[in-house]
Amino acid sequence: MPNKTSFPVLTPDEAAAQIPHGATVGFSGFTPAGSAKAVPEALAQRARALHEAGEPFKISVLTGASTASQLDDALADADAVSWRAPYQSSRKMRKDINNQQVQFLDMHLSHVPQMIEFGFIPQIDVAVVEATDVTTDGRVYLTTSVGVTPSILRHADKVIVEVNRHHSTRLWEMHDIAVLPPPPQRNPIPIHHPLSKMGTPFASVNPDKIIGIVETDAEDGVAPFSPPDEVSERIAGHVVEFLMNEKKAGRIPADFLPLQAGVGNVANAVMAGLGESEVPPFYMYTEVYQDALVDLMRKERLLGASTCSLTLSEPKLQEVYDNMDFFASRIVLRPQELSNNPGVVRRLGVISINTAIEVDIYGNVNSTHVTGTRLMNGIGGSGDFTRNAYLSMLVCPSQAKGGAISTVVPMVSHVDHNEHSVQIIATDQGLADLRGLGPMERARRIIDHCAHPKYRDYLHRYVEDAPMGHIRHDLHTCYELHRNLLEHGTMLPEG
Amino acid sequence: MPNKTSFPVLTPDEAAAQIPHGATVGFSGFTPAGSAKAVPEALAQRARALHEAGEPFKISVLTGASTASQLDDALADADAVSWRAPYQSSRKMRKDINNQQVQFLDMHLSHVPQMIEFGFIPQIDVAVVEATDVTTDGRVYLTTSVGVTPSILRHADKVIVEVNRHHSTRLWEMHDIAVLPPPPQRNPIPIHHPLSKMGTPFASVNPDKIIGIVETDAEDGVAPFSPPDEVSERIAGHVVEFLMNEKKAGRIPADFLPLQAGVGNVANAVMAGLGESEVPPFYMYTEVYQDALVDLMRKERLLGASTCSLTLSEPKLQEVYDNMDFFASRIVLRPQELSNNPGVVRRLGVISINTAIEVDIYGNVNSTHVTGTRLMNGIGGSGDFTRNAYLSMLVCPSQAKGGAISTVVPMVSHVDHNEHSVQIIATDQGLADLRGLGPMERARRIIDHCAHPKYRDYLHRYVEDAPMGHIRHDLHTCYELHRNLLEHGTMLPEG
Repeated sequence: MPNKTSFPVLTPDEAAAQIPHGATVGFSGFTPAGSAKAVPEALAQRARALHEAGEPFKISVLTGASTASQLDDALADADAVSWRAPYQSSRKMRKDINNQQVQFLDMHLSHVPQMIEFGFIPQIDVAVVEATDVTTDGRVYLTTSVGVTPSILRHADKVIVEVNRHHSTRLWEMHDIAVLPPPPQRNPIPIHHPLSKMGTPFASVNPDKIIGIVETDAEDGVAPFSPPDEVSERIAGHVVEFLMNEKKAGRIPADFLPLQAGVGNVANAVMAGLGESEVPPFYMYTEVYQDALVDLMRKERLLGASTCSLTLSEPKLQEVYDNMDFFASRIVLRPQELSNNPGVVRRLGVISINTAIEVDIYGNVNSTHVTGTRLMNGIGGSGDFTRNAYLSMLVCPSQAKGGAISTVVPMVSHVDHNEHSVQIIATDQGLADLRGLGPMERARRIIDHCAHPKYRDYLHRYVEDAPMGHIRHDLHTCYELHRNLLEHGTMLPEG
Repeated sequence: MPNKTSFPVLTPDEAAAQIPHGATVGFSGFTPAGSAKAVPEALAQRARALHEAGEPFKISVLTGASTASQLDDALADADAVSWRAPYQSSRKMRKDINNQQVQFLDMHLSHVPQMIEFGFIPQIDVAVVEATDVTTDGRVYLTTSVGVTPSILRHADKVIVEVNRHHSTRLWEMHDIAVLPPPPQRNPIPIHHPLSKMGTPFASVNPDKIIGIVETDAEDGVAPFSPPDEVSERIAGHVVEFLMNEKKAGRIPADFLPLQAGVGNVANAVMAGLGESEVPPFYMYTEVYQDALVDLMRKERLLGASTCSLTLSEPKLQEVYDNMDFFASRIVLRPQELSNNPGVVRRLGVISINTAIEVDIYGNVNSTHVTGTRLMNGIGGSGDFTRNAYLSMLVCPSQAKGGAISTVVPMVSHVDHNEHSVQIIATDQGLADLRGLGPMERARRIIDHCAHPKYRDYLHRYVEDAPMGHIRHDLHTCYELHRNLLEHGTMLPEG
């Protein structure tokens, strides 16, 4: 393979040594899928050594979304991060963000590539990207995610490629890669169907920027799919029943519409429930392709999926690799600017299903900050889909921490999706269809259909006692439940 | 004109008599421009007479946005409305909404046509639309706005056309009308430039649904443009300076990008300021074409504008009508689904400038509800543009009511645009560029650059005293300023 040997082969330590304190580093990765692994892990070691020697070492970290443990966990454990965007799901990184040790920028995922292109976020000094292959003329064949990698390859000053032998070299058959030019040179995006392709099967880079390749053989390390619990199954039941009724009423066409589902147990349960329902075989236009979808696709319940990542546990990923003739024509892997593109989501009529931390009685949704202050993961792609969906659905269990927390509250403590964009809320208790309703009818429906019965009296009383207005709120008591939680560990201490 | 006489000519009273109690009525109108006038005014009379006779009469009112005084003011004065969507700016209607006499649905304006098409809001019984002409085969030539009229003509059971002789019969030269089909039959929207056209110069209706025409000769009644005050000019100065610097830094291309500006004094001042600046001649992709733009266009500072309405005072409208050869090729009037389309806004790279009621120290914006409860007008198109803009700017004076109100608060009492979508905030005090910043840096910048000096200490202290977190908030005191205002008439009673 003469192409590859023309780039210097570096050890992870040698590559990490090229990244100075204060650098802005763009890493590949959208979920653990396709995340850079060896170099960030070596970088964490380098940071520890420098810190022990009394020298500062921190970098700014830009990725597609969350990453493998070798990246966010390792760098956070080594106190090696000063700035992070646009999303994360690492326990240690979260702690540092919530203690303001790390400055975090919580962004709509579809915005990240264009913000780089427009020059709205810091210049990228080094890109570290995982690939199955890279050619001397600068074609970079990516692995299990695309994320923001094509953009960081274009804009980074220096590039390190982790060539990971673990992945199928046929992944390029799924890739559809394009970087949108900045306006005013933009044309309509030619995606007419979830499986439309518009780009190339590889990302492009100026080969002169490649300072070396690092050879690896590493798994993504995606946690396996756990079977849905009873609460998730109940939520899924309400969602599936609603969608079936919408189809019967003619408000969803007979061929159905593409679905998007967020990450996690509830979304997995919904997908499993749809798979077993009388919904016709369907497509997805989504950002994450998870374990549950492999079976649905093999059963031909799921006909095809556009996604930004293959976030699959090792056995499921191997199942895909062992059956590439089947899967390669049914999956399209796109950059997050396209997988999550608001215009395409609206055009295709995507039905979006995302998870909430809490919802309020008027239909506003908090997806990111517990008690308005403590970041969970970030908004991710939920805003890209919710704001532009054909039907925007937000789901969560009606209570948390054994009932100490009601997820239905008078006023959410952080607003990620507001009443103007949220159409459907579902919990294990039931589903509230908010279309066409003013605030007071929304409140009645959300309390009666979605709140846990133990909290309903409190919520109804809140509305009745609040000052009159188009929306009734009492600015003394709107956060009483949250304050109780912070002070007493439970939202209704006397309840 | 044999075409028109083939439809029955009705008096306004005869037309109004066709609209029963409980009906859902779709009226033309996007601002006072193109609003139905004679029939709603007669309907208000009919409601009064029925109420005096002890009979109930209320209707559901759907329009493009706000309307002429003959519509919202008249119907609200007559207590003839039970449900209203998607936006209004009438003093009496607002009062009824805030007393919950009228159920109000506050919607993103671009959503309204598709919600009708999808069957997500109530079936329309009667459409009442203003036109310059209607043909026996169902071509309806609209007047000074398009709004949601093409959709209500498609979906209403019965149609009444107000043929208004006051308007230029050449307005069709500006119109570009299309109704998007529901997914999955949607193609990319072929708008490559603010002046691209994709549709027809008329709206279409099944002529069998037309139960009559009403002949009128009525002005839109748009209030004349008032010259900008000093505060607005200061805000405009900061915005213009920022845009010039972005252009110098290469983050806005040399040819500039299309602008969108909301309604009102500040937006007018910004447009006037841009007109006098060194910004090159530019285009607009906006929802309302206001008085200030006529002069800018005649000076060839404004090269062209896509809009949903010509919201012009009578002298300015006559100036346009007297110079149709000049203006007709420079203005495109579109339905709100296209004038405000998120995908097109993002593709064209629109720079959006909208007015806020209040902003918070983390960059969340309230555009709709005073103290979280009392509706002002509605979100209108501000969300369509802000969420998808190349640069999203929100502007407001730093204080209101002679200093009793700080428009910069710890936590906004209603969130219409959140921290994920808001990039720039400007007040008379200065401008905060939030791109790339985490919450704590955003707070410092907004307080120091945008808040009135009298409130800065309070706001800094709020952040310092609030519990640690990614975002610092104290759920006991986050609304202290609002509570002070409600209880003492001023946010800082001791200040």
